[in-house]
Amino acid sequence: MTDLILTTFDWVPDMPRGYVRDLRVRWALEEAGLPYRVKSVPFRERGAEHFSHQPFGQVPWLTDGDLSIFESGAILLHLGERSDALMPADPRSRSEVIEWLFAALNSVEMASLPWALFKFAGDIAETPGRKHLDGFLKARLQHMEKVLAGREWLAGTFSVADILMADVLRLVDRFDGLAGYPACGDYVARATARPSFAKAYADQMAHFAAAD
Amino acid sequence: MTDLILTTFDWVPDMPRGYVRDLRVRWALEEAGLPYRVKSVPFRERGAEHFSHQPFGQVPWLTDGDLSIFESGAILLHLGERSDALMPADPRSRSEVIEWLFAALNSVEMASLPWALFKFAGDIAETPGRKHLDGFLKARLQHMEKVLAGREWLAGTFSVADILMADVLRLVDRFDGLAGYPACGDYVARATARPSFAKAYADQMAHFAAAD
Repeated sequence: MTDLILTTFDWVPDMPRGYVRDLRVRWALEEAGLPYRVKSVPFRERGAEHFSHQPFGQVPWLTDGDLSIFESGAILLHLGERSDALMPADPRSRSEVIEWLFAALNSVEMASLPWALFKFAGDIAETPGRKHLDGFLKARLQHMEKVLAGREWLAGTFSVADILMADVLRLVDRFDGLAGYPACGDYVARATARPSFAKAYADQMAHFAAAD
Repeated sequence: MTDLILTTFDWVPDMPRGYVRDLRVRWALEEAGLPYRVKSVPFRERGAEHFSHQPFGQVPWLTDGDLSIFESGAILLHLGERSDALMPADPRSRSEVIEWLFAALNSVEMASLPWALFKFAGDIAETPGRKHLDGFLKARLQHMEKVLAGREWLAGTFSVADILMADVLRLVDRFDGLAGYPACGDYVARATARPSFAKAYADQMAHFAAAD
């Protein structure tokens, strides 16, 4: 088994702490019980070496032997292929995990992250575009509410799809966006009650606190 | 080999024609030379059967034997695993295709689609949130410009990652958002000049026109 190395920033401002995407990778690694090390790159000065691993100058990336992988979705899919605890190997279950993994990112987060940008900015202007964006998120949450009212986890058993979906919904919850969606709220509570989430969260907070 | 069936809407308004996401799947199927059939579901009345295949009431989905797959990213990844013309099988190339496939959806489209929502709405208000959103897209395009200035395709040879990235950037181009990014514009032109794109585009337009 090769050495897994997760790279994240050395430091970030208070606001994103607990929400930096290395959390998703830490959570998956803890669930799978895969040993790993954490390395840091400067938040303030992002050099050519950084961009060679992550072309948008973001974090995280994961190295697994001579593979270097960016994008939290790609990293979690890669880890899912290494551990049955993250993604069952039988074709039907695997397919379900993968479609929900994409749904978390491309159907829900694509609506929720821009919505959160406006919340971060304290923007309350109700312009036509803003109404579109709010309606976009609302429609997605209404559908997720129906899905989550009927099941514990997205694809039968807990998987990388739940790590992504719960992390995406957690940011909505931070800005009270789940108030009308109790099944979504319960799902986030259920997912974040897992010891692996608690460990990942505490480790991220400690990592950034150490650089203050 | 099992029968591939792509399901899309029976009809859509003029505005999204040429941009409905079944295009991505048609394009991939044409590139791979995989035979497929197209089925329709009602745009106006979306029933329980529709939601059982696509929990957000959207399209497309693909059935491959007894697998039914939603999310264009998941479908393209599935097709990539069926055809070397869409995703090389060697581990390093495969990993590169997958990370760029996620980058198209989660690093670029997550900024570009909400930006396009404001354009669709004709919203010109420069609120603080809007400035965040514009800056989010601008940063992503600046990084993509550097990447695309140095390579023909994202992961060595043409792949499903290019289908997604080109389709994502094509929507930005529709609203003149690529004006300051010539390498991105050239990339979209290069990708959409492929005969498989032309076939997929013409087929989608004809499909919706037949229902008018």
